[in-house]
Amino acid sequence: MTDPLDVATLQRRLADFAAARDWQRYHTPKNLVAALSVEASELVEIFQWLTPEESADVMADPDTAHRVTDEVADVLAYLLQLCEVLGIDPLAALDAKIDRNERRFPLP
Amino acid sequence: MTDPLDVATLQRRLADFAAARDWQRYHTPKNLVAALSVEASELVEIFQWLTPEESADVMADPDTAHRVTDEVADVLAYLLQLCEVLGIDPLAALDAKIDRNERRFPLP
Amino acid sequence: MTDPLDVATLQRRLADFAAARDWQRYHTPKNLVAALSVEASELVEIFQWLTPEESADVMADPDTAHRVTDEVADVLAYLLQLCEVLGIDPLAALDAKIDRNERRFPLP
Amino acid sequence: MTDPLDVATLQRRLADFAAARDWQRYHTPKNLVAALSVEASELVEIFQWLTPEESADVMADPDTAHRVTDEVADVLAYLLQLCEVLGIDPLAALDAKIDRNERRFPLP
Repeated sequence: MTDPLDVATLQRRLADFAAARDWQRYHTPKNLVAALSVEASELVEIFQWLTPEESADVMADPDTAHRVTDEVADVLAYLLQLCEVLGIDPLAALDAKIDRNERRFPLP
Repeated sequence: MTDPLDVATLQRRLADFAAARDWQRYHTPKNLVAALSVEASELVEIFQWLTPEESADVMADPDTAHRVTDEVADVLAYLLQLCEVLGIDPLAALDAKIDRNERRFPLP
Repeated sequence: MTDPLDVATLQRRLADFAAARDWQRYHTPKNLVAALSVEASELVEIFQWLTPEESADVMADPDTAHRVTDEVADVLAYLLQLCEVLGIDPLAALDAKIDRNERRFPLP
Repeated sequence: MTDPLDVATLQRRLADFAAARDWQRYHTPKNLVAALSVEASELVEIFQWLTPEESADVMADPDTAHRVTDEVADVLAYLLQLCEVLGIDPLAALDAKIDRNERRFPLP
């Protein structure tokens, strides 16, 4: 039986992976945000010529579904590594942001 | 006492927030990946003129630390909303990707 | 009477502008491509929630037209500065690329 | 003897190329800005793990020099196509932007 996945476990796997390959010296915050934006653009590339309707249906094709899932993983990988080197808790950051947005865009 | 934060809880908050404002019609996968890439670039903007050494020290300034944390939250918000509309489990996607990377970049 | 605009004239203006403010030390190729991608994303931000039809009509609103034109200028500014520091002729690069694309995507 | 290259000539070549392949229906402004940002990120990808010093030296390696030049061409191609569909003169836009920046960042 495996433990359920959580963010801290994945961050530890990512840090171990980078450390074992001596890649941590490349992982300045500046480089990690660049890599994050590159991976986000690889997601955009999948969708760039699609109509809104076609974009809603990308998971119907197994190859495209795999590509999208793979790029989502890459974005999350760099986001979690960035948070690790900067000492940011991503889930707490988002929770606080939703709180601020609820005040910024109040319901009628 | 509050429950510990997890991805599913945040996804529910984000979905409720969008639904209450009738914003879900904007949230095609194509639009969400564009918004994700825009937020990732807002992170890059903070770092674009910094040296590697300066970039490692961004959290020392409270205003910059807040900006970085806020943009991290925005990136995560769009990533989780994208995963929600596409039916992707982001933590499982990353776990599988690390497995593949361990085979792709084997240790000596 | 002013001379007609050309790329070399604009590159000289940009270089003079940066030199007069001692900004050239920030203009490593790495930083310039980051800035270029940030400006490209500011263009995306204008369009991110628009339908294809709305996007075709952005120039009808004077404020939006000004924003789009301004971001186009920013993208071009960083592209020309990048070409200057790397010694690339952007028009020749594009001309050669169209030649290659004509061979890569031949007409029936 | 060939005519010297200019922006209008390249825009005509790009428009003819797209029209001959019936690609113009994909070239909404929204899609073109997405493609522009994707190409800008492909430039970033080349530089993402480089030190500032390494980034200043990318043209020394012929393969990397070719990749950089090719991506510069792609960015310019989408920028010029965007300007064509929106009726923006990119050189005039940049000239006006430099004028505004000279007022915004005056010399001492």
